[in-house]
Amino acid sequence: MNIEQEKKVSKLKIIPLGGLEQIGMNITAFEYGDSIIVVDCGLAFPEGDMYGIDLVIPDVSYLKENIDRVKGFIITHAHEDHIGALPYVLREVNVPIYATKLTVGIIENKLKEHGDLLNTVKRKVVKFGQSVNLGELRVEFIKTNHSIVDAAALAIFSPAGVVVHTGDFKVDYTPVYGDAIDLERFATLGRKGVLALLCDSTNAERPGFTPSERTVGRTFDTIFNEHRDQRIIIATFASNVDRVQQIINTANFYDRKVVVEGRSMVSIMDIAESLHRISIPEDTLIELEQLKNYPPERTVIITTGSQGESMAALSRMANGTHKKVSVMPGDVVIFSSNPIPGNEKAVTKIINELLIKGADVIFQDAHVSGHACQEEIKLIYSLVQPKYSIPVHGEYKHRKAQAKLAADLGIPKENILMLRSGDVLEIDEESAEVTDRLNCMPVYVDGLGVGDVGSSVLRDRQHLSESGVVVAAITVDSYSGMLLTGPDIYTKGFVYEKESEELLGGARDCLTAALVDAFDRNVSDWGKLKSIMKDTLAKFFWEKNKRRPVILPIIMNA
Amino acid sequence: MNIEQEKKVSKLKIIPLGGLEQIGMNITAFEYGDSIIVVDCGLAFPEGDMYGIDLVIPDVSYLKENIDRVKGFIITHAHEDHIGALPYVLREVNVPIYATKLTVGIIENKLKEHGDLLNTVKRKVVKFGQSVNLGELRVEFIKTNHSIVDAAALAIFSPAGVVVHTGDFKVDYTPVYGDAIDLERFATLGRKGVLALLCDSTNAERPGFTPSERTVGRTFDTIFNEHRDQRIIIATFASNVDRVQQIINTANFYDRKVVVEGRSMVSIMDIAESLHRISIPEDTLIELEQLKNYPPERTVIITTGSQGESMAALSRMANGTHKKVSVMPGDVVIFSSNPIPGNEKAVTKIINELLIKGADVIFQDAHVSGHACQEEIKLIYSLVQPKYSIPVHGEYKHRKAQAKLAADLGIPKENILMLRSGDVLEIDEESAEVTDRLNCMPVYVDGLGVGDVGSSVLRDRQHLSESGVVVAAITVDSYSGMLLTGPDIYTKGFVYEKESEELLGGARDCLTAALVDAFDRNVSDWGKLKSIMKDTLAKFFWEKNKRRPVILPIIMNA
Repeated sequence: MNIEQEKKVSKLKIIPLGGLEQIGMNITAFEYGDSIIVVDCGLAFPEGDMYGIDLVIPDVSYLKENIDRVKGFIITHAHEDHIGALPYVLREVNVPIYATKLTVGIIENKLKEHGDLLNTVKRKVVKFGQSVNLGELRVEFIKTNHSIVDAAALAIFSPAGVVVHTGDFKVDYTPVYGDAIDLERFATLGRKGVLALLCDSTNAERPGFTPSERTVGRTFDTIFNEHRDQRIIIATFASNVDRVQQIINTANFYDRKVVVEGRSMVSIMDIAESLHRISIPEDTLIELEQLKNYPPERTVIITTGSQGESMAALSRMANGTHKKVSVMPGDVVIFSSNPIPGNEKAVTKIINELLIKGADVIFQDAHVSGHACQEEIKLIYSLVQPKYSIPVHGEYKHRKAQAKLAADLGIPKENILMLRSGDVLEIDEESAEVTDRLNCMPVYVDGLGVGDVGSSVLRDRQHLSESGVVVAAITVDSYSGMLLTGPDIYTKGFVYEKESEELLGGARDCLTAALVDAFDRNVSDWGKLKSIMKDTLAKFFWEKNKRRPVILPIIMNA
Repeated sequence: MNIEQEKKVSKLKIIPLGGLEQIGMNITAFEYGDSIIVVDCGLAFPEGDMYGIDLVIPDVSYLKENIDRVKGFIITHAHEDHIGALPYVLREVNVPIYATKLTVGIIENKLKEHGDLLNTVKRKVVKFGQSVNLGELRVEFIKTNHSIVDAAALAIFSPAGVVVHTGDFKVDYTPVYGDAIDLERFATLGRKGVLALLCDSTNAERPGFTPSERTVGRTFDTIFNEHRDQRIIIATFASNVDRVQQIINTANFYDRKVVVEGRSMVSIMDIAESLHRISIPEDTLIELEQLKNYPPERTVIITTGSQGESMAALSRMANGTHKKVSVMPGDVVIFSSNPIPGNEKAVTKIINELLIKGADVIFQDAHVSGHACQEEIKLIYSLVQPKYSIPVHGEYKHRKAQAKLAADLGIPKENILMLRSGDVLEIDEESAEVTDRLNCMPVYVDGLGVGDVGSSVLRDRQHLSESGVVVAAITVDSYSGMLLTGPDIYTKGFVYEKESEELLGGARDCLTAALVDAFDRNVSDWGKLKSIMKDTLAKFFWEKNKRRPVILPIIMNA
């Protein structure tokens, strides 16, 4: 081994495979020598222009190509944007999963829904303070606080230095379940020397401190006290076990029975209860069917749908399509959530529906964020004292805001690294440099298809959505090559056909003339004929009504 | 005339033809006896599920049916949600337009773009304080403040009583152009007795007072002062003439040249200048082409695109598709606007793009709303002292918030009227009652087509957008009725065809089998054959990949 090779091996590689341009799809590979570990494996939900796409998952070709070196997935917490792609990725990269108790519990529940994965994938529960040795890397789990219990930060030990990855976190000195974030451990690591900090940027634009989850409990108390004569419906995130715990505590205090509604919420509640992450007083929970046995003002319904999701329980209760619960005049509906960016309009729509139904809607103060604001981010930086700053988790503008905080704290600008997905960062005490770039295009999941829909198919879907499709069909005599029948014109999503006979008749006449002319000129190449059909109709419809439908010319032999 | 008829005639009818469910499409008919006047004639922009729709305009069948009684359009101000549908509606309801100077100017510019409307439609400029007699109704224009100059409130005098309509308004004691809102006139009307108040609800959820437009000028001064060495790009609403005036003033003070970019902004600036609603110091404005003659830090670009519109000038400057301006590192981009609900994501996207380009982005404090907050709404109620409250302008939740304010101010709940579009409210001092309901479905404009796309076509477009289209075509011998050729399968927006040969081949085989079976059973009815083709493919694709493409079966004779 010459000196150059020696030098190469001595650096740690950090490779974000997703999550930087595509919010949510958090997955980062750490590589030293023969050892690769992967932190998180999240999915993204489709953006507005991803027509018909159900989920977006990361491209893990790099992991597949290096499968013999991949030691495992380290999962920081059980939110979809950190675990959601596991069922897809594990089929191609089947390595052990390391995570805390509730995180493993929720992952196992997810694997159960995906065939035999639960039998083939190894899981290991790690406690806070414990380390896992994975080849030349060692990973220690550190207690943090977040909007789901058992969230962890990671200290990744490599011969090139220690990297701290916060995961999603906030600083909560008075959490509902478990301990506060282990600030002492961050401080000790910092004192010993940390190479790089990958820190959550989600709230980096917000000054101050995120309030404790416990403050929401006090808000619930106030609201319950002020609405003693009304049924209370509370929408929140299915996975926020602490939030549900607080609602149950308040309901119990005010002697109300609690119904939990919404498939994902019921499922996470079951897991949390079996793992002792939530404690439910006896005789508090009732089944949906039992609601009718209690006066409305003695009940609370906790439900999914706080983001205005049209298929979730709250939407169905509001628009009258829920089989068992309908919102009634006098109900109090509390949104214990903030709209995730992009969902504002859907949430407003459901608020309007609830108000029209006569419900009181409470939208303020019944929620706190699970992410660190500026003062918390600065606290972590001050404890960890990293040489390099690598802002993660959040849109570019959030990461840029963290970069500004890091600079304010004295980290030299050249040591603040704004990475892109696919960047291969080689880093040690001497330098940090992007030396390569992997192709990390997100993979679209549509139904059972993974990766069989891409940008050209999506462009077609967008085009179809804007003006619909016009199919023009003719048959050609296979012997003479002459036009036998047609052109026939069919449309879908273009115009009301019955009211548009004149338009479509005109199109048929115009196309017939063009075809007669083409056959007169002995055009027989089907490609050319199809082009003539397409161009003729495109021109006709643009002139007539300024629209550009997708035009599909069909020629059949007979 | 018997007593019942007499009683009927003595009431005023208020009919919102749009604007209550469909935000933006503001249009309200006021009818007394033989006289109908129409306040505003706005358009709505399509919601996310209105695939391919360009604009939404009101259904004015009622006005067409009663055209001989319609005396005119009274326009409160020149925003699209109050004037945008005029070019479409005037073709069917050609009656005179009454409005203030800038409003008429902008309407005339709009009519110019729509063929011969400018020659056939009468316009009359009305001054603040003036009244217009329209049959049995009289309309007085009252000075208000809003984010466009020359905005008016209306006092509508009828034998049944006086109705005050605020239009969109705020209270600005120190406006940039012209006078403050004419509070004295509201007070005088109130003292004499007002039957009903139709008041702007847009900001009714917000406590306090909307700051004066002039405060934005001070913000510009601070920003310009702090960024003396950088080029400044400011995005704002094209129609906010006062905002542009303040930018020009600040630029002039700091000795910068100003470029106005974006078609709609240039056009409104021209109108405002010709009507003396803006005053531009000599040698301040330069053409886009002259930019290169000045150092960047001596220039300001005022542009459209503050809502993240992908085709507007700012987007094109950010993504490098603008022919003459590219955002450069060091540019300061100011958003002098707030995202309109639903545009949050698009605005964030462009902010991220600008930051990636190296620009500084300023998003705070460089904007104030044009709508009244709670204290202003309460002020107007307190002056006008209406018997009835009819909250208008805003979503249901905003109107409901105003209803709450009205109740707090002592208006009896039964006198607070939450109307729906199409409601025919009959009102006088004795009572207010919805006596009828018109069918007021919004009309979709798609290209040149007005009303030829409706809900079933939109459902098809949505379906197409989700899974694309599969066309299956066969030819049948016209003599024997037997299958001649096919089935051939074509797809668009469904899957990558090249990578999906197996899937599509399987579909063809499956369909062939079904057709052979059908022909064996002597099924010859084309409707039945098409059903078989559709059902077979739908089942096949659902089983194979859990997708439901639009399936279009085609049978041709040969």
